[in-house]
Amino acid sequence: MEGPPHTIDTNNINNSHDNYKDIVVTPWEVFGDLEDKMYTKLIEKFGTQAITHDLIEKFKKLIGEIHPLIKSQYFFSHRDLDWLLTKYENGDPFYLYTGRGPSGFVHLGHILPWLFTKYLQDKFGSKLLFQLTDDEKFLYNPGATRETISEYTSENILDIIAVGFNPNLTRIIIDTKHINYLYPLATEIAKKITFSTAKAVFGFTNTTNIGMIGFPPIQAAPCFLPSLIEKKPTPVLIPAAIDQDPYWRITRDIAAKLGFYKPAQIHSKFLPSLARISKMSSSRPETAIFTTDEPEIVEKKVLSSFTGGQATVSLQKKLGGNADICPVYGYLKYFFDNEKESLERYIRCKSGNLLCGECKSDLANNTKTFIIDFKHKREKAKDKVKDFMFDEKFSS
Amino acid sequence: MEGPPHTIDTNNINNSHDNYKDIVVTPWEVFGDLEDKMYTKLIEKFGTQAITHDLIEKFKKLIGEIHPLIKSQYFFSHRDLDWLLTKYENGDPFYLYTGRGPSGFVHLGHILPWLFTKYLQDKFGSKLLFQLTDDEKFLYNPGATRETISEYTSENILDIIAVGFNPNLTRIIIDTKHINYLYPLATEIAKKITFSTAKAVFGFTNTTNIGMIGFPPIQAAPCFLPSLIEKKPTPVLIPAAIDQDPYWRITRDIAAKLGFYKPAQIHSKFLPSLARISKMSSSRPETAIFTTDEPEIVEKKVLSSFTGGQATVSLQKKLGGNADICPVYGYLKYFFDNEKESLERYIRCKSGNLLCGECKSDLANNTKTFIIDFKHKREKAKDKVKDFMFDEKFSS
Repeated sequence: MEGPPHTIDTNNINNSHDNYKDIVVTPWEVFGDLEDKMYTKLIEKFGTQAITHDLIEKFKKLIGEIHPLIKSQYFFSHRDLDWLLTKYENGDPFYLYTGRGPSGFVHLGHILPWLFTKYLQDKFGSKLLFQLTDDEKFLYNPGATRETISEYTSENILDIIAVGFNPNLTRIIIDTKHINYLYPLATEIAKKITFSTAKAVFGFTNTTNIGMIGFPPIQAAPCFLPSLIEKKPTPVLIPAAIDQDPYWRITRDIAAKLGFYKPAQIHSKFLPSLARISKMSSSRPETAIFTTDEPEIVEKKVLSSFTGGQATVSLQKKLGGNADICPVYGYLKYFFDNEKESLERYIRCKSGNLLCGECKSDLANNTKTFIIDFKHKREKAKDKVKDFMFDEKFSS
Repeated sequence: MEGPPHTIDTNNINNSHDNYKDIVVTPWEVFGDLEDKMYTKLIEKFGTQAITHDLIEKFKKLIGEIHPLIKSQYFFSHRDLDWLLTKYENGDPFYLYTGRGPSGFVHLGHILPWLFTKYLQDKFGSKLLFQLTDDEKFLYNPGATRETISEYTSENILDIIAVGFNPNLTRIIIDTKHINYLYPLATEIAKKITFSTAKAVFGFTNTTNIGMIGFPPIQAAPCFLPSLIEKKPTPVLIPAAIDQDPYWRITRDIAAKLGFYKPAQIHSKFLPSLARISKMSSSRPETAIFTTDEPEIVEKKVLSSFTGGQATVSLQKKLGGNADICPVYGYLKYFFDNEKESLERYIRCKSGNLLCGECKSDLANNTKTFIIDFKHKREKAKDKVKDFMFDEKFSS
């Protein structure tokens, strides 16, 4: 079995002696200035690879185009993506695997990598495993009940289906519901990970509950499940925000010992919050646009958003705005503007020829239209839930 | 919900500052002289209760007799057994719950508490959950493969059924097979147990794998499963050797927080090894009689057993034997002799009127007969496995 040969993963995310103390990015916490230089630092800190020009060309060679989220560096980092694409080129198809922690409603920051994942599925014809870690979200949040998490799980599934994944190629795994498919594999993974390693990677302490300590192998299991389904070592690509990297790092460390390929990854940035430059957050609902928000709420949130604009119109005209830190600009760029539109908007903003009101109005209109359409798809998804549930028959 | 009111459990099993350093009894290791005084010390160390005369009388009042294994103090300690019997007296039936770690073949030391459990089931009409911790045994033994553990699991199930449990009242839970019934409950338990507590109770270290750390809630879950099955808080009695106590101690600590009764326990001693006074061990096959042993092997093992006899016949006649430390005497007492026979044997041995050869011959004959009969029942069990498997329909 020829696995990815060259990558050296590092496990220093919680190393207090490192040089990246101004950045905290773990599966449970994101802290730091989400500017481009922070993402460059994250590549160093996590030991991942930047997405290079050559890699982008390889994508283009295979599927004839470059996705705007790659072009705009929203997906900015990877592990073994080059290896995976070479495998694909040589006739070895890959699975996609991504997931969602159902601790609340879904917002646009969650949807963006899912839209990209659907794009990859369409272009590469990949099967997709979509995991809902309802166990982890219950274990992590002191106030969470199993009932609440279960309700969010059902709601989130509608969002996942509404994204438009291919029902023949996609299966949703709910941890507590499908644990029998994950658990035997998870014990094999767990046996290879000492508390010492888990502590270093996830920052577990004496007060961490033992459910959280025992959980990482459950999130790692779908990395290897495709090899069991296909009955041969099967490449897997994980498109996800970079905060999930610690899970895949320990998974990669033990993959070869268990006879599997290391899962490849493609990492996204975080969609900025509407309040200031940091990750959009379910825990501060006013700073995120949820798929369950009513259109008038969407409009209100956008219109009261933080921007990169100056304090007054005259200052804006004189000094120009700061599109680089502006969430309104970011949303328009990643969701609605094409490359040309986005560049024009950038130049007009920087030169003081564009006022925040116009951008907010553009974003409000676009987002309202998007959300109204998405809500419609969500409604239709209610009849499709069963088709998407994982079962033993999910194989070629 | 009126739970057991008075018991104070202590969690000092791995406290290195305790006064019981000469005894190590954990679910994975038993070390110390298995004499009566050690068992008295264990009651102090674990904070359990001795089975008193009053409690024995309560048993007698309810079921009209006293089981020889209680009379002989093979079952010597308990938690909340008095409470459980009062509940039963007042019309609240209880479940039995016991288990087996399938790391090898089953020997007589395993069978004895199971025979007692069957007796309790017959007398109290109790439903029984019998858990096979195949996950734990895989996680714990570095050399174990899932395949080997799975084979032992299948073999051990035949032994369990051969004991004669009532198929209408008994369900076997195999952790990796029935994890979907255990896992949601296990997450609720896990959320209440910090690493700090688990470390103190089980002695986990930095090199412990995270599967082992995450495992205790899986063994705790069947303590509360009866309440879910019966849809009301349901008393549970666990008959098991005292080395399993740490699991039930942490389970009891969190029971009330989750709205369940604390599981009651009745603790047995360990059946002595044939080699010397310590626990009969699957890892030293020559010191234990397995249900899979051929009759001639059984005879050979018994005839070469360690005894409490003197070095020569003349010394034996002069000084008498030491039945108290003699495994041959122990086996005969717990398995085959009735109370009168055992007492006579004890007196004849101590007074030098009984030679080891006679006891060995008695034990060899009895054991061979028992094993031949048991093998027959094991064969018949092969057709009954399905009837004993846990399923959703197991309820009144």
